[in-house]
Amino acid sequence: MKPISLSVDAMGGDAAPDVVIDGLDLFFATRSDAHVILHGNADLLTTSVQSRSWSDACTIVDQPDVVAMDAKPSSALRRAKGTSMWGMIETVKQGEAHAGVSAGNTGALMAMSMLALRKMPGVHRPGMTAVWPTLKGRSVVLDVGANLDADAEQLVEFAVMGESYARAVFGKEKPTVGLLNIGSEEEKGRDAIKLAAELLRNRDLGIDFRGFIEGNDISTGLVDVVVTDGFTGNVALKTAEGTARLVSTYVRAALSSSLLSKAGAALAASGLRELKSKLNPSSVNGGVLLGLNGVIVKSHGGTDAEGFSTAVKLAADLAQSSYMDEVAAGLNRVSRLGTSPETVE
Amino acid sequence: MKPISLSVDAMGGDAAPDVVIDGLDLFFATRSDAHVILHGNADLLTTSVQSRSWSDACTIVDQPDVVAMDAKPSSALRRAKGTSMWGMIETVKQGEAHAGVSAGNTGALMAMSMLALRKMPGVHRPGMTAVWPTLKGRSVVLDVGANLDADAEQLVEFAVMGESYARAVFGKEKPTVGLLNIGSEEEKGRDAIKLAAELLRNRDLGIDFRGFIEGNDISTGLVDVVVTDGFTGNVALKTAEGTARLVSTYVRAALSSSLLSKAGAALAASGLRELKSKLNPSSVNGGVLLGLNGVIVKSHGGTDAEGFSTAVKLAADLAQSSYMDEVAAGLNRVSRLGTSPETVE
Repeated sequence: MKPISLSVDAMGGDAAPDVVIDGLDLFFATRSDAHVILHGNADLLTTSVQSRSWSDACTIVDQPDVVAMDAKPSSALRRAKGTSMWGMIETVKQGEAHAGVSAGNTGALMAMSMLALRKMPGVHRPGMTAVWPTLKGRSVVLDVGANLDADAEQLVEFAVMGESYARAVFGKEKPTVGLLNIGSEEEKGRDAIKLAAELLRNRDLGIDFRGFIEGNDISTGLVDVVVTDGFTGNVALKTAEGTARLVSTYVRAALSSSLLSKAGAALAASGLRELKSKLNPSSVNGGVLLGLNGVIVKSHGGTDAEGFSTAVKLAADLAQSSYMDEVAAGLNRVSRLGTSPETVE
Repeated sequence: MKPISLSVDAMGGDAAPDVVIDGLDLFFATRSDAHVILHGNADLLTTSVQSRSWSDACTIVDQPDVVAMDAKPSSALRRAKGTSMWGMIETVKQGEAHAGVSAGNTGALMAMSMLALRKMPGVHRPGMTAVWPTLKGRSVVLDVGANLDADAEQLVEFAVMGESYARAVFGKEKPTVGLLNIGSEEEKGRDAIKLAAELLRNRDLGIDFRGFIEGNDISTGLVDVVVTDGFTGNVALKTAEGTARLVSTYVRAALSSSLLSKAGAALAASGLRELKSKLNPSSVNGGVLLGLNGVIVKSHGGTDAEGFSTAVKLAADLAQSSYMDEVAAGLNRVSRLGTSPETVE
């Protein structure tokens, strides 16, 4: 492994910088080879970091301005300079860090990342990923909210970028790809999706495309990469989170509904602990804005230290992987084969 | 209660007619005041029904042709006459039954229902409902797949029809309504959704409109009626089903991971039985195609007898409710206030 340098926005997120610093504790416990550049209020951070075992592996940069969690992307962009978020991205842009992480305002992070890092050649719209727990392990779903819509060509780009991402992050040689639709039959669905399926089937993109999948197929892990537009992906992701919480509430109620049930739950404690960890959203925290000249990982704003460490680990994994080269090669195949906007309509 | 007459497609669904007949057993155990007109293969049905306690409350009509579960709606329409599904709908159309039920091919059922029953005045697109279990009880979500898209005016219609439906089925005086979006802020989301929100906010439709909700808000029961386009609603519904199954699998694994866990599960059996019944999709089975001159309930094709009885009960509840009048009044308010297609764009 080459030593990795990561740029971290210490002021982003609902409980920054405490969750960030505690998350880095957990991260460094598993990855001692990393160096972290921490952006934020230097006084505050210096005090907080100096007692940590990893204080020597950390550089603090004073960028005390904070992007408000509810700021509009446009207004955040106007006041970007001097913020910890902008500093974090700039460090990635300058090549001083292999990847960056923030738990701050999603819209602002996307807007600043696009402005600073620019899109990779051949990319029309970056797509935001989410890692999704499944019966078989994990899948990646994109776009989960970087855009409101996607035409056929953008869906094909998401497929190419998502496939490269899955190969880099999951270590799968040939990840399978499906298009999210409301039926698995060829003639069903919106025009953009049907056209995207045709392109993915007929062009020699080197992708193992499995056709349409439906909402219930995401959790079974039918494919490694689920491709959809940002609106649908965002609704699906949040609906799944809500459903998991609902069922968890039912389970807790069932196991405390009587003395016998409570005794049963006590006996089953070890199994239930495992269940809790499986349902822990912290274990899959971290979305990546694919298609930019640089790796920026978005952590959930309300995550805990464990969740933040998961996002930092993802950034480290991506930094050490061949992900950027994979995506570039994939995008190159797309444009060579003429699914670029000039030829597709 | 006035005596109700229901029209039932006995041949629709993966395990017809057995599931249908067994489902009627369960239905009649709770509703002895109903009469059922059963459409299908008369020989088969007569043999099956004659031993049942409700055989006198049942009329069998010989319509032996079956709409294949995988038939395209267009081809099913061409061969509609003589099928049990068409016969079921015709009986509703003739006013011989207050409502109809089928577990058959969804696309064919929608196409035939629209052709035979026609849309109510003021309706541009019918919407399919789903009942969604929530932390607070139940909500209704629409459209879950009758259409691929929805413009602002159609979303307003769904809101009006869904609100009337919730009042009739849940017995709520003033159901709350939300628009599914990818953020709760006013400026977020697709144009059609933003325009629909404006119409729902500013027109005096008599609806308790609560603005935008996100995917995770569906399961908390934040609103009684969740309005969305058919594509998004279908993906959300199926994603939730998949997630519930995934979590249930985790729970089963957790409670059988060791001897202690198994012993715990045995002790907690009564609580877990309740959990199982809460997670049972049969308990919320039954979608309704809102906006037609007649009530047709769509049961899940793969449901069991209990699920089918839930769908029949829903048909009976709707038949006895003021739902049709409510919807008509709501649609009338919409067109009077000028959100009809002539004035909105």
